[in-house]
Amino acid sequence: MKIVKPTLILDKQKCLNNIKSMAAKAAANQVIFRPHFKTHQSAEVAEWFREYNVTAITVSSVEMAEYFAAKGWEDITIAFPVNILQMPAINALARRISLNLLVESEVVIKFLNLHLQHNCGVFVKIDTGYHRTGIPVADITFVEHLAQMAEDSPKLHFKGLLVHNGNTYYAASAEEAKKLTLASLGNLANHVPYLLAKYPRMLVSIGDTPGCSIVNDFGIAGEIRPGNFVFYDLMQLELGSCNFGQIALIMVCPVVATHKERNELVIYGGAVHLSKDFLIRQDTMIFGAVVAFHGNGWSNPIQGAYVKSLSQEHGIVKLHPSHFPAFHTGDLIGIVPVHSCLTVSCMKKYYTLDGMIINTF
Amino acid sequence: MKIVKPTLILDKQKCLNNIKSMAAKAAANQVIFRPHFKTHQSAEVAEWFREYNVTAITVSSVEMAEYFAAKGWEDITIAFPVNILQMPAINALARRISLNLLVESEVVIKFLNLHLQHNCGVFVKIDTGYHRTGIPVADITFVEHLAQMAEDSPKLHFKGLLVHNGNTYYAASAEEAKKLTLASLGNLANHVPYLLAKYPRMLVSIGDTPGCSIVNDFGIAGEIRPGNFVFYDLMQLELGSCNFGQIALIMVCPVVATHKERNELVIYGGAVHLSKDFLIRQDTMIFGAVVAFHGNGWSNPIQGAYVKSLSQEHGIVKLHPSHFPAFHTGDLIGIVPVHSCLTVSCMKKYYTLDGMIINTF
Repeated sequence: MKIVKPTLILDKQKCLNNIKSMAAKAAANQVIFRPHFKTHQSAEVAEWFREYNVTAITVSSVEMAEYFAAKGWEDITIAFPVNILQMPAINALARRISLNLLVESEVVIKFLNLHLQHNCGVFVKIDTGYHRTGIPVADITFVEHLAQMAEDSPKLHFKGLLVHNGNTYYAASAEEAKKLTLASLGNLANHVPYLLAKYPRMLVSIGDTPGCSIVNDFGIAGEIRPGNFVFYDLMQLELGSCNFGQIALIMVCPVVATHKERNELVIYGGAVHLSKDFLIRQDTMIFGAVVAFHGNGWSNPIQGAYVKSLSQEHGIVKLHPSHFPAFHTGDLIGIVPVHSCLTVSCMKKYYTLDGMIINTF
Repeated sequence: MKIVKPTLILDKQKCLNNIKSMAAKAAANQVIFRPHFKTHQSAEVAEWFREYNVTAITVSSVEMAEYFAAKGWEDITIAFPVNILQMPAINALARRISLNLLVESEVVIKFLNLHLQHNCGVFVKIDTGYHRTGIPVADITFVEHLAQMAEDSPKLHFKGLLVHNGNTYYAASAEEAKKLTLASLGNLANHVPYLLAKYPRMLVSIGDTPGCSIVNDFGIAGEIRPGNFVFYDLMQLELGSCNFGQIALIMVCPVVATHKERNELVIYGGAVHLSKDFLIRQDTMIFGAVVAFHGNGWSNPIQGAYVKSLSQEHGIVKLHPSHFPAFHTGDLIGIVPVHSCLTVSCMKKYYTLDGMIINTF
């Protein structure tokens, strides 16, 4: 494959290893492995999960559920608060597949009671500290009230509690991310037994890749829904969720100019390719790490090199002065994305190292 | 048009006014108006420029040049350093249309001398302070050297100097953006006459929307290439490049949950829709302003309301407590994007208020 413009490259073997490893961890914990497909967004990569007996998946929108349902996935949780404006599409899905919805208010359950035409599972969204969505876990009587509303509903079936402990993404270290995850699990362990007494078959479903990667014991959880682990990325590396060898995706970019006076390269590869997500390392914004790309893989990160800024199509790569002479206009270099989910979403397609194209939804 | 998911809506009349106003300013200054099409990215919107006798355009990639060339645009500047890996595509374009390239090094001119098969104009990229790409304007003898290399080349024709004074985007105020623009123009005025004596027909082409919007006299410039002005956005409003009534594009998003205890709404509308670009206002990161959307337009910004965070599909809107009761799950609200170019690039299509779909390249 001749690369002449920003091209997203997947190391399939690393991706398969990531899937195998998370599937093994789920099996060892005897929890359901319901991977989130919002990262790879692809029917092709989805097939790679079947070897690990994955049949139940998670998505983040009705549209993504439609895409995977059309590709033969018949047990889908939409881990996003029900958008009541999409009721016709939700009904069409619920007719065909085993669909789980996410609720956090009376108003949505009442709406579903009026408009849902087919049976659906329902999870109550629980907030254990992220404060994005959900009911605070300490409000267990309100959670119980919603659970009972769902149980009393003609079409809904209360499946359990769903948590996305996304505050791990703001952790300063792996140790802190681990503490946040254990705190979230501990919080659930304190309050959930009260509900379990009433709904013994209810599940506790937990989400985020940092938590699922860092802890070995999922405690009270009966299901895990990590997504990003399939590729990992620079943010996960920084958080300590993965090691560098597990990152399965890089953007290969042409060097279009070199600026010796400031040890910088200009690359064709910008915000429309990588997304504008960044991390902060020692007060410096970092939009990607830099690797050497050789057709069948890539090097470790080049020390002292990073993407310092992104415009629409331009990226600026800062180098250590000693490395500058090795780079030339017309070279291809690899950029490790900060956030692989958004990079995939920007690009819409990627290629394996042996040139197979992978299209997304 | 029934909106049920994040949908990008264009007020065509505002857009036409923006085009008219910038075309009039160019005419008053007797400069060439070569608008950058990287913001709207659409053949449809491109047609709206023809009424103002626009025939020459700017794009930011070879791929975008191919798209607009296929739509009948025959005079295109690719305002991005030549990516020598795309030489076959550049040759194919140069054969069909009047193409201008951007260079900033000997190595690229030498490469073009060897591989270019058809005539091309060439601009030397000049840096007047942004330090992203280009030759510092004070290095006028090196600029002259590149200009002469181009003149001596069998296929290249030296067209002039091209500046993108993108540091206006980092200005703290309209006053500062104006100062930066005038400083850039002054810098050019100091050094360019030396070159003009040798190349009397050379053009000075300037870029950025803040500069072209804020100053009334383009000084030594003979061409302007603003792009973002076609829609403007929250960043431009913050910089003082436009007033609110000139912003032509909003994202309409469903409200999927409300959280009274923190005066927040959860909307379906995240980083994959709006992009992750933000601005900082009083130490707070802002990912969008909030307006009331009524089918044929939208309100002024709702005071105290802003998008405080974006995940992949979720947005969190912070409200003033007094406004909270007016919003409900299932409502549609409008979000003014921080950076319209990236939002368009995320969405790939948008709709006029009367429901006409506009596809991008």
